[in-house]
Amino acid sequence: MENNKGYHVAVVGATGAVGEQILKMLEVRQFPLASLKVLASARSAGKTVPFKGQDIVIEEATPEAFDGVQIALFSAGGSVSKALAPEAAKRGVICVDNTSAYRMEPNVPLVVPEVNPEAMAEHNGIIANPNCSTIQMVAALQPLREKYGIERIIVSTYQAVSGAGAKAIQELKDQTEAIIRGNEVKKEVLPVGSLPKKHQIAFNAIPQIDVFLENGFTNEEMKMVRETKKIFSDETIAVAATCVRIPVVKGHSESVYVEFKNDYDLAEVRTLLENAPGIVVQDNPEEQEYPLATEASDKLETFVGRLRRDLDNPRGLHMWIVSDNLLKGAAWNAVQIAEELVKRNLITES
Amino acid sequence: MENNKGYHVAVVGATGAVGEQILKMLEVRQFPLASLKVLASARSAGKTVPFKGQDIVIEEATPEAFDGVQIALFSAGGSVSKALAPEAAKRGVICVDNTSAYRMEPNVPLVVPEVNPEAMAEHNGIIANPNCSTIQMVAALQPLREKYGIERIIVSTYQAVSGAGAKAIQELKDQTEAIIRGNEVKKEVLPVGSLPKKHQIAFNAIPQIDVFLENGFTNEEMKMVRETKKIFSDETIAVAATCVRIPVVKGHSESVYVEFKNDYDLAEVRTLLENAPGIVVQDNPEEQEYPLATEASDKLETFVGRLRRDLDNPRGLHMWIVSDNLLKGAAWNAVQIAEELVKRNLITES
Repeated sequence: MENNKGYHVAVVGATGAVGEQILKMLEVRQFPLASLKVLASARSAGKTVPFKGQDIVIEEATPEAFDGVQIALFSAGGSVSKALAPEAAKRGVICVDNTSAYRMEPNVPLVVPEVNPEAMAEHNGIIANPNCSTIQMVAALQPLREKYGIERIIVSTYQAVSGAGAKAIQELKDQTEAIIRGNEVKKEVLPVGSLPKKHQIAFNAIPQIDVFLENGFTNEEMKMVRETKKIFSDETIAVAATCVRIPVVKGHSESVYVEFKNDYDLAEVRTLLENAPGIVVQDNPEEQEYPLATEASDKLETFVGRLRRDLDNPRGLHMWIVSDNLLKGAAWNAVQIAEELVKRNLITES
Repeated sequence: MENNKGYHVAVVGATGAVGEQILKMLEVRQFPLASLKVLASARSAGKTVPFKGQDIVIEEATPEAFDGVQIALFSAGGSVSKALAPEAAKRGVICVDNTSAYRMEPNVPLVVPEVNPEAMAEHNGIIANPNCSTIQMVAALQPLREKYGIERIIVSTYQAVSGAGAKAIQELKDQTEAIIRGNEVKKEVLPVGSLPKKHQIAFNAIPQIDVFLENGFTNEEMKMVRETKKIFSDETIAVAATCVRIPVVKGHSESVYVEFKNDYDLAEVRTLLENAPGIVVQDNPEEQEYPLATEASDKLETFVGRLRRDLDNPRGLHMWIVSDNLLKGAAWNAVQIAEELVKRNLITES
């Protein structure tokens, strides 16, 4: 795909659940493309993916494939990013990496455009996209943090299976159907593909996402802890997370308790959130209105509701935050970073 | 049903989801029955329910039906308990009430046998069974509270649809099947039967259980707050809850953060829980072992795992608590109270 105006973009890992959504976002957002390369493993090379009514042939992701590219959006797994993002960066490409490979590297900005777009300027060829569960939480907390300061966050998540990829979506569907038909339930993917033990996700809640670490938290939980501090540039914020997979296809929900440094006004909290970019307030108990995963699905925004003051700590606020984990939690945040790079004139001329 | 030894027992509301389980518990636990009366509304009178291989004819629940009864287990809804429990009590019956009708009455003990069995002695004919989500939480916290004292609790729940009755179970099944078959999804029961708006529960998470109150919390959330304080006889404990319905049939899961008054030792926490009555510790991250709703289903115990110290507050502990909401959360706790009444010689001779 070639155009006179716009930017030379590559999508790495276009056949995955997130890669697909990245292509969709580039299309929907009418991202100014001079050219689009779709890269994947040698196995997928030669296949095609649809884009704006055309079939784009997948090329093998090699270092040379990045010649002439200006922005590369990576979502092909950590090992691919580890191997190829530095090669692309060497060639002057700005890589927006959706894996966890570089998120905690000190010289790699970790960016949610509504929160810390200024961090992008410090990139050294790689900008990291945060974990899905982190993005929606910090996006919703940012306007409140700016006003009141944050002392601590305690979050329990209700995460969709799509966060674990296309195979996990299929597993939820297969298990659900097996249970309804009275057939045997096969457990092959969740909670963690690479670990030996599998648990049923259909009609269940699994308190494990990613591997366990020494401190008893899972890697997913520690991602929320570390990434939140990095995005907010504040190591003093206390963060604790419990990450749970539930039988939902798309849309992560989060029960968040936040303690502010200063006194807050609940009506003002609502106004701050209503005026914040990318945030939609759905908070009307009388109408039974609050964010729901099914309704947030396929939307770009982060939805916030169930706003209420803690009963004991006047600086404590409870909230319910929902967003599409494949969009704001992944593909849309990545494309949004690309849009912001353009807006801020940070793209290297190719 | 008549026997020479044992007690004269009535079960009120035996055709509901909990009532069925109460009969099952009386049978499984071989509760010493001199006679068993099964009472329900006039509509169900004349029908039969199975018990120990026999068919027991349902009688209409009238004040006179309680003559000669020693223990009555109520689970026919708040209005039935309001109308009939005082009538039964007048006749010398000890009523174990599974509804919320009397829970917060100052002269009614609210009892979880592992926590405050001594409160039963103060009964005035009525003993209240706490809310399902409260029971499993206080049962698991009790051995830790005794040792370290509790400053505050923040809980987010993952509650099964069976807590909303048989119609909600059917709704989850019907909606799930409709989605899998690509049919239209009907929403008729959840989140709250008596309220106008309905939300899809299949493949979703609904942050509303029971009606909303003035303070922005739901009634279910405030039950957890108020009942916890009453059961622990401690109004100073700070409690906050977010109660969420998820597409699980049986078994409530809870992400609980607790802050102790005193320093604690994590190994000792595990030992205290292992030695506590009714508690099973499932906490082995290396083996991916933690409590799961599917595995807790049909069990009497409360399962505890994901034990880990908060990263910032050394007196903070995170845990994951799961139990069968129809058993320990309702029927088993009620029958356990009846067993305890026998053990403590609190039954009036009939």
